[in-house]
Amino acid sequence: MTAYDYDLFVIGGGSGGVRAARVAASMGKRVAIAEEFRFGGTCVIRGCVPKKLYVYASQFPEQFEDAAGYGWTVPEASFDWRKLVENKEREISRLEGLYQKGVAGNGGETLHTRATLVDRHTIRLEGENRTVTADQIMIATGGRPNPHTALPGHEYCIFSDEAFDLPELPKSIVIAGGGYIAVEFANIFHGLGVETTLIYRGKEILSRFDMDLRHMLHETMEKKGIRIMLHTVFEKIEKRADGRLDAHVTGGEVLTADQMMLAIGRIPNTEDLGLEKVGVEMGKMGEIIVDDYSRTSVDNIWAIGDVTNRIQLTPVAIHEAMCFIETAYKNNPTKPDHDCIATAVFSQPEIGTVGLSEDDASKRFANLEIYRATFRPMRHTLSGRQEKMLMKLVVDADTRRVLGAHVLGPDAGEMAQLLGIPLKAGLTKDDFDRTMAVHPTAAEELVTMYKPSYLVRNGQRVE
Amino acid sequence: MTAYDYDLFVIGGGSGGVRAARVAASMGKRVAIAEEFRFGGTCVIRGCVPKKLYVYASQFPEQFEDAAGYGWTVPEASFDWRKLVENKEREISRLEGLYQKGVAGNGGETLHTRATLVDRHTIRLEGENRTVTADQIMIATGGRPNPHTALPGHEYCIFSDEAFDLPELPKSIVIAGGGYIAVEFANIFHGLGVETTLIYRGKEILSRFDMDLRHMLHETMEKKGIRIMLHTVFEKIEKRADGRLDAHVTGGEVLTADQMMLAIGRIPNTEDLGLEKVGVEMGKMGEIIVDDYSRTSVDNIWAIGDVTNRIQLTPVAIHEAMCFIETAYKNNPTKPDHDCIATAVFSQPEIGTVGLSEDDASKRFANLEIYRATFRPMRHTLSGRQEKMLMKLVVDADTRRVLGAHVLGPDAGEMAQLLGIPLKAGLTKDDFDRTMAVHPTAAEELVTMYKPSYLVRNGQRVE
Repeated sequence: MTAYDYDLFVIGGGSGGVRAARVAASMGKRVAIAEEFRFGGTCVIRGCVPKKLYVYASQFPEQFEDAAGYGWTVPEASFDWRKLVENKEREISRLEGLYQKGVAGNGGETLHTRATLVDRHTIRLEGENRTVTADQIMIATGGRPNPHTALPGHEYCIFSDEAFDLPELPKSIVIAGGGYIAVEFANIFHGLGVETTLIYRGKEILSRFDMDLRHMLHETMEKKGIRIMLHTVFEKIEKRADGRLDAHVTGGEVLTADQMMLAIGRIPNTEDLGLEKVGVEMGKMGEIIVDDYSRTSVDNIWAIGDVTNRIQLTPVAIHEAMCFIETAYKNNPTKPDHDCIATAVFSQPEIGTVGLSEDDASKRFANLEIYRATFRPMRHTLSGRQEKMLMKLVVDADTRRVLGAHVLGPDAGEMAQLLGIPLKAGLTKDDFDRTMAVHPTAAEELVTMYKPSYLVRNGQRVE
Repeated sequence: MTAYDYDLFVIGGGSGGVRAARVAASMGKRVAIAEEFRFGGTCVIRGCVPKKLYVYASQFPEQFEDAAGYGWTVPEASFDWRKLVENKEREISRLEGLYQKGVAGNGGETLHTRATLVDRHTIRLEGENRTVTADQIMIATGGRPNPHTALPGHEYCIFSDEAFDLPELPKSIVIAGGGYIAVEFANIFHGLGVETTLIYRGKEILSRFDMDLRHMLHETMEKKGIRIMLHTVFEKIEKRADGRLDAHVTGGEVLTADQMMLAIGRIPNTEDLGLEKVGVEMGKMGEIIVDDYSRTSVDNIWAIGDVTNRIQLTPVAIHEAMCFIETAYKNNPTKPDHDCIATAVFSQPEIGTVGLSEDDASKRFANLEIYRATFRPMRHTLSGRQEKMLMKLVVDADTRRVLGAHVLGPDAGEMAQLLGIPLKAGLTKDDFDRTMAVHPTAAEELVTMYKPSYLVRNGQRVE
């Protein structure tokens, strides 16, 4: 063991890699972590964190409008995109520093270089032109937006990475994609005053979420003024003489805008890492294949987070890191638990969801009770905003277990987090019913829906 | 039975009374409900609903300020108090109508009159100068602010009732009280630009809540600019020549302000109802004494809600109404469950809490683990606002059960509602730990505090 330079070498300084490095270092392991770009990874640098900050920024115009119903007269506000970008940059730099300090403060070494595998114990530090050795190696290199190189004119498109740092705010944008990244950015740009079109090849935005949420979010986004085109893809992007872009889309329409954005999925960062050379198996998408304990086909090499394409969420990568620590260093083999994970989409309105959608549940359970309520959030009684909130519980009628909880509306993300606890614990509708309401809140609706809105028997809705 | 005019006569058209009347009517009972003021009761007319609307109104100035860090320049906004009052009035009138319709639509009769008891089956309708009879009678007359008539100059003071409908917004106000009403109004008036002082006779605002929350809320309110004086009461209120008011308070200081408000508790509405005459027992505060099923000492007379001075919360009154229905009309005697009720204080920042405070838990459990986190909510990383969020879990170290969950910060009320489910169900800290985080949310802190901040053994804090 001591023949190696390090006990653990981590490639990739995102949330998963940094957690593994920091905790291993805190246990006295000799640890190094290499990052070629910026510590913090997708989440901190060009994902969750800047995204949510931009969501906040984009919500202010509606707040200014809403104030009128409460007696406020607000003169027209102006927006400075560069100031937002600068302030965001300062915040993520602060977090970047904290991520590095977390490792260094525990005695780990942080290396600013691309690192690749030479053999199963040897890592080449590309930027430093030297190699080091390690007993265990962790690949946590994450993913990146699918570049869609097959699209003629793809070189004119931006991705979520660039969207955060555009030199100026476009007047108009077309975003291709129907996942949460596409949807969140459509709301951000629209909120900031950009004429926004969302095109998606599928039949409804946000596949895999509950259909009720998908429809109502779609409808609400359109009411706000976002154009949504389903069953539609980019066929060709062309640059115009005036510098703007033309997108030829399914059906022949040409959409002209200042920016075209691709948000059609993410791919694992596994190229040119030397993985093939050392025998680490990969799947069709280029993802690293791991066993239940995050171990690759080479037994001293592990992989966690987005590069494994299991569930691409920051807390999941962190959880996988903690399970790795248990397995590798605490003699306590621990499988990451990927079941019943609550998630949020920071669309406007927000989505918060945990457990099974009605459609999924109806394939697996013979008798469902669906509890469903839509109402205007109290804030909008005076603001006059015509936006409704949706709450839905999917219950197994035979066991009373709550299988899914779905929220569309303000604070849905916070709600999903806390709904995660009873759903993960397998609580029943009776447990919800026994809980006293907190008034006036929106969430009280979730504990006061006493009668099913409808039943689903053997996959068929019954009134 | 049919000898009576009604099967059920309800006195008081608040949340509890209306629920009892509506549901009994929907079961085919002959029901009447009398209300002397406005249907909807404290909650709708001069409590929860207008309060929360005013909280929204008072939060806008901070939102305008917060926008700057996100790139927005917002010119100075102006505020029209009367417009807020009018818009509030329209909304509560709408709700008032819904409350009445709920009863009438189910075949019940709504009467706009004061009603008093003549004997155990006879009710006098004071406004109509006639009597009616009923088999069962429900008293749901609620409560009102303690008028504090012993205070010299009390006649110059307003109460929460009047505060909603002041002809104009005062420039300055002194509020006496340390309960949630005093605290919420202090924040509302301050938010709307009123110079606000809160005086309270006790050692810290919001007794019975967790001390951590109380201290941090106090500190945050002072930072915002609210003056808080503890161990202080009004000794005398005098009207000045300029029309303003002088409050002489403990210690000799004289506080001058446009309005003086008393929010020092609430008392049950039981005077002149004929209760003594028919033999309904009352307690020292004038509250109606009921058994576990909300039955008074006269067996066909029941009482629910604030008039019984059990737990003064809208959802509790509604719950008591539903238990009454089970007991009286469904042959299913059901005791209201007053255990482990989540509540919110719509202070700024909000409080949401469920279960035992650390102090209470330490008296009842020998070994506690306290998990505690304070952090800046993400929104304020760019707004620059120096406000922290507090989250705290009180855990029985012996059983791992989560005894109390306490939140101070944005959306704490929504969080308390959903924390109510696992706490009511008796879930453990392990159930919290098993729940995956939702990132980035504030609530994720509640499922990612893995190590106790400190322990409490036999009432003593141990580091």
